[in-house]
Amino acid sequence: MEKGTLLYEGKAKKVYQTNNDDIVWVEYKDSATAFNGEKKASIAGKGRLNNEITSLLFSKIQALGIDSHFIKKVSETEQLVKKVEIIPLETVVRNLSAGSFAKRLGVEEGTKLARPIVEFYYKDDALGDPLLTEDHIEILQLANIDEVAILKEKALQVNTVLSGLFKELGIRLVDFKLEFGKDENGNILLADEISPDTCRLWDDKTNEKLDKDVFRRDLGNLTDAYETILARLGGQSVCIK
Amino acid sequence: MEKGTLLYEGKAKKVYQTNNDDIVWVEYKDSATAFNGEKKASIAGKGRLNNEITSLLFSKIQALGIDSHFIKKVSETEQLVKKVEIIPLETVVRNLSAGSFAKRLGVEEGTKLARPIVEFYYKDDALGDPLLTEDHIEILQLANIDEVAILKEKALQVNTVLSGLFKELGIRLVDFKLEFGKDENGNILLADEISPDTCRLWDDKTNEKLDKDVFRRDLGNLTDAYETILARLGGQSVCIK
Ligand SMILES: Nc1ncnc2c1ncn2[C@@H]1O[C@H](COP(=O)(O)OP(=O)(O)O)[C@@H](O)[C@H]1O
Ligand SMILES: Nc1ncnc2c1ncn2[C@@H]1O[C@H](COP(=O)(O)OP(=O)(O)O)[C@@H](O)[C@H]1O
Ligand SMILES: [Mg+2]
Ligand SMILES: [Mg+2]
Repeated sequence: MEKGTLLYEGKAKKVYQTNNDDIVWVEYKDSATAFNGEKKASIAGKGRLNNEITSLLFSKIQALGIDSHFIKKVSETEQLVKKVEIIPLETVVRNLSAGSFAKRLGVEEGTKLARPIVEFYYKDDALGDPLLTEDHIEILQLANIDEVAILKEKALQVNTVLSGLFKELGIRLVDFKLEFGKDENGNILLADEISPDTCRLWDDKTNEKLDKDVFRRDLGNLTDAYETILARLGGQSVCIK
Repeated sequence: MEKGTLLYEGKAKKVYQTNNDDIVWVEYKDSATAFNGEKKASIAGKGRLNNEITSLLFSKIQALGIDSHFIKKVSETEQLVKKVEIIPLETVVRNLSAGSFAKRLGVEEGTKLARPIVEFYYKDDALGDPLLTEDHIEILQLANIDEVAILKEKALQVNTVLSGLFKELGIRLVDFKLEFGKDENGNILLADEISPDTCRLWDDKTNEKLDKDVFRRDLGNLTDAYETILARLGGQSVCIK
């Protein structure tokens, strides 16, 4: 497999063509961004950590029955994934109140929700990723109602599997964001990444935040938090200092 | 019927007790507010206009099969309505893109939507009336799923009737906000007001805005616009200058 031309550079990753039209080469960058790109930093080691963690998580949930675009890790900071056409929705699952949910709706952070809920946000940086209702999704033709139902179902399945997996590691999965895309046959496939950049992960005993909120809210050393997640997942920690 | 003690003073109306526990006395004020109370003004005649228009509209849609809390107009600025416990949701129906919908979702103002859509906002000034999904409504226990279905159905019925009514008067009903409440038997009843404060109304030919956007966006004389609506509805215009 050969790394070809750059197709897209996002806030956290670069996506390259390969010599196979159905496969792309993803490189995780050392950049951290928050608040729709308003807060930015370069953090040495972050790319490696998110590549390792995402690769481990996609492998583990695959074994538990959750398919994704993930093919394999090819270097410390790179992985091969099936190419999909990303559906421009950020699918968010919430188990506890936190972040924008807590603030917008006045629900104290940490409050357990009566049941997990799925929210959809319009993946559009220029609009600031606004919250969408299902009618909005249909009207904007981002997905049809059947697809929305599939996204919800898949997102809740991922939640069940991931919550259980993290629970065994002494970590509460508070909320997380997923992206889905369509493969060459039109099948909806889980894509993008699952990492402390896209999940809120709280230590079960100490409530310590082990995710991007460390960066968003200046709570300490980001890579220390991500190393903790990687270590608990059984991944290999590399001292980069 | 006697006007009793003040129960509640809102941004646009005062609600008084009466000697009948199931009836309240509503007085329309001359105040205009926008952007969650950030922009404010006192506009002579506005209270009378909204009282007249709301009374006319509730009477007209009643005749077309839409029940509401409305009992009768008792003075230029006052009406009697059935007392309800307001469900803290602003139920919005949209036919064309405008206002926050246009801005949040990047849909040019005036674009006709493929079908009318219903949105719910949390009626909470401190939170700035955030948009809610149906899951939010359930989780926050603002209404249950059956009630949400009833609100949607009733809102779309009101839209059909109101759109037709305005169309005959050469006016496009772009969008509007409703409030519903529960009467003493737990029945869901259309409440609050229907006026140019709560509807976007555009002249069919000239596209002239005949609603609160005149105030929000400083487009001219607010009472002139509201007088136009009242006149087309066949109401009595009183020169207050
Ligand atoms: N399997 C895939 N095929 C094609 N594109 C993908 C795939 N998985 C993720 N992407 C897209 O690649 C980009 C990843 O880079 P990222 O830095 O996260 O971008 P962004 O700043 O847009 O979120 C995103 O736009 C994401 O939607
Ligand atoms: N039938 C009714 N019974 C009781 N309260 C009502 C009824 N209809 C409307 N209300 C409430 O009365 C208040 C009307 O005043 P308004 O100035 O519109 O208040 P607000 O600034 O809270 O929107 C609102 O809180 C509205 O929900
Ligand atoms: Mg991304
Ligand atoms: Mg009001």
